[in-house]
Amino acid sequence: MGPHPAVAAVRLAVRTALADLSPGDVVLVACSGGADSLALASALAFEAPAAGWLAGGVTVDHGLQLGSDTRAEGVAATLRGLRLDPVEIARVTVGTAGGPEAAARTARYEALDAIAEKLSVAAVLLGHTRDDQAETVLLGLARGSGARSLAGMAARSGTYRRPFLALDRSTTQRACSEAGLAVWEDPHNLNAAYTRVRVRHGVLPVLEHELGPGVTAALARTADQLRDDADALDEWATRAAETCVGQSGVDVAALEGLPAAIRRRVLRRAALAAGSPANDLSSGHLAAMDTLVTDWHGQAFVELPGGIRVHRVDGRLELGRV
Amino acid sequence: MGPHPAVAAVRLAVRTALADLSPGDVVLVACSGGADSLALASALAFEAPAAGWLAGGVTVDHGLQLGSDTRAEGVAATLRGLRLDPVEIARVTVGTAGGPEAAARTARYEALDAIAEKLSVAAVLLGHTRDDQAETVLLGLARGSGARSLAGMAARSGTYRRPFLALDRSTTQRACSEAGLAVWEDPHNLNAAYTRVRVRHGVLPVLEHELGPGVTAALARTADQLRDDADALDEWATRAAETCVGQSGVDVAALEGLPAAIRRRVLRRAALAAGSPANDLSSGHLAAMDTLVTDWHGQAFVELPGGIRVHRVDGRLELGRV
Repeated sequence: MGPHPAVAAVRLAVRTALADLSPGDVVLVACSGGADSLALASALAFEAPAAGWLAGGVTVDHGLQLGSDTRAEGVAATLRGLRLDPVEIARVTVGTAGGPEAAARTARYEALDAIAEKLSVAAVLLGHTRDDQAETVLLGLARGSGARSLAGMAARSGTYRRPFLALDRSTTQRACSEAGLAVWEDPHNLNAAYTRVRVRHGVLPVLEHELGPGVTAALARTADQLRDDADALDEWATRAAETCVGQSGVDVAALEGLPAAIRRRVLRRAALAAGSPANDLSSGHLAAMDTLVTDWHGQAFVELPGGIRVHRVDGRLELGRV
Repeated sequence: MGPHPAVAAVRLAVRTALADLSPGDVVLVACSGGADSLALASALAFEAPAAGWLAGGVTVDHGLQLGSDTRAEGVAATLRGLRLDPVEIARVTVGTAGGPEAAARTARYEALDAIAEKLSVAAVLLGHTRDDQAETVLLGLARGSGARSLAGMAARSGTYRRPFLALDRSTTQRACSEAGLAVWEDPHNLNAAYTRVRVRHGVLPVLEHELGPGVTAALARTADQLRDDADALDEWATRAAETCVGQSGVDVAALEGLPAAIRRRVLRRAALAAGSPANDLSSGHLAAMDTLVTDWHGQAFVELPGGIRVHRVDGRLELGRV
């Protein structure tokens, strides 16, 4: 009798995601102790010996909850029990920049980056599932900030890989229970102060109920397509910027020949290069800049965040500090 | 004392949307008797004399509800009361293709097209609001069919113009009550058998509650950006198709040089040109076709809807009927 279908599915996902690795390569799984990353750790531990990968694990102690150090020890013990080696605990200090979720994420990835470099890993595996992907799309929608923020998470970025992006969370939960692994439920995952938690428990179930059970898959599919779209548009914008943007500014005639989506991306790059902060630069600012190209009637200037002004002078947009 | 802000807002929206028209141009408002299109009719009637436009109205009797003919007469009387002239009632027969909502839409636009041509109109105005736009994005998300279906409705397409895409439905409702116009509530708008109705009453309020009151605006902003994105990607795909697609098939080497988003669009065009029906051609089919380019290992063929097979022969994709 073979393994349970959920166990087979998580193993296959790991095998497929790492098909390009060689024997001797070091692979690290980032594990919170939750169902997704625990199923991932378990699958990696199962697949590694036959493939010849050196498989280790890391758990991050964010130090945000009382007893988080004890919990991290518990997760590390579970990972060692799966015969992952080395197993590390990364203790981080979470700042405040960008809000609690963003600050925790920043600290977490910095720690993972450091360990990945120290161990010269070929890949760091993350347990994000299709449900996480759908939540990411909805969070991007709520921001209204365009294709890139709707595009969700990539199956690969740098050393990070997400083998479970096409699997449901319920599959990882089932795989854990089949393997007899005790799952830790992060109390943060039930804290309605977090937008993602409200999306998970308040929004997605309603969407599934009103629009049908395929919504999560549809959102994930949307993310995939929009990521490809955003990549292609960025490629075009990069080429366009090479001809439009010079030392003395952005050439208006060259901008006029571009479709709106590319023009906006070239203008965004010019604004960032001039020192306007990415987090404050909205689509409204870019639309205002664009009027200097498409609706020129002698406006004085357009103001951007970071004290940047955009003037149109002699057929060029000039960006500079006030 | 000036008009109520809601009345001023709908009038300004009409004036702005028609700023390029000339005296003597014929403008028609399509009016169901609901708040959105009634506010639109009222604003057009107010603006037309000063601008010199010849402003008329049309209401469509879909013949789907008992007494719909009487109701259409009532709407026509209201439009005449606003001094619109001519006022027409278009009686249509709704088919079944694509489901009840799509069939009604098809019949409605055919009738509007015919009247627009008969009267040589400069513009036909439609009352869609920002709320409709947000609903359209969510419906597209639920389908998972990519940027074009998320991109919602354009402010202009052909002779059709939608002056209210940046206004809330509540503004049109307020404008009607301020003008003393009796609004007709279409019972279809409360029928939960329609997906759009479930989105309006079941999904959007939950999103606003969980994610904040800015969600509708964010969805509409997303639609605008994705429409521009889709236009730019289509432009690139059109150019790419000119070099990739020939009499004897699609050139694989040329496809390989394209980003995934453009490759998929070129493949989609080739599939449609070969006779695969647009409604049945899914992103899964295109992904399968794409493996003949990006993951070629001598596969026999890929099957598309409409009995089309795709073979890779001598560095070309050949599409043909089985």
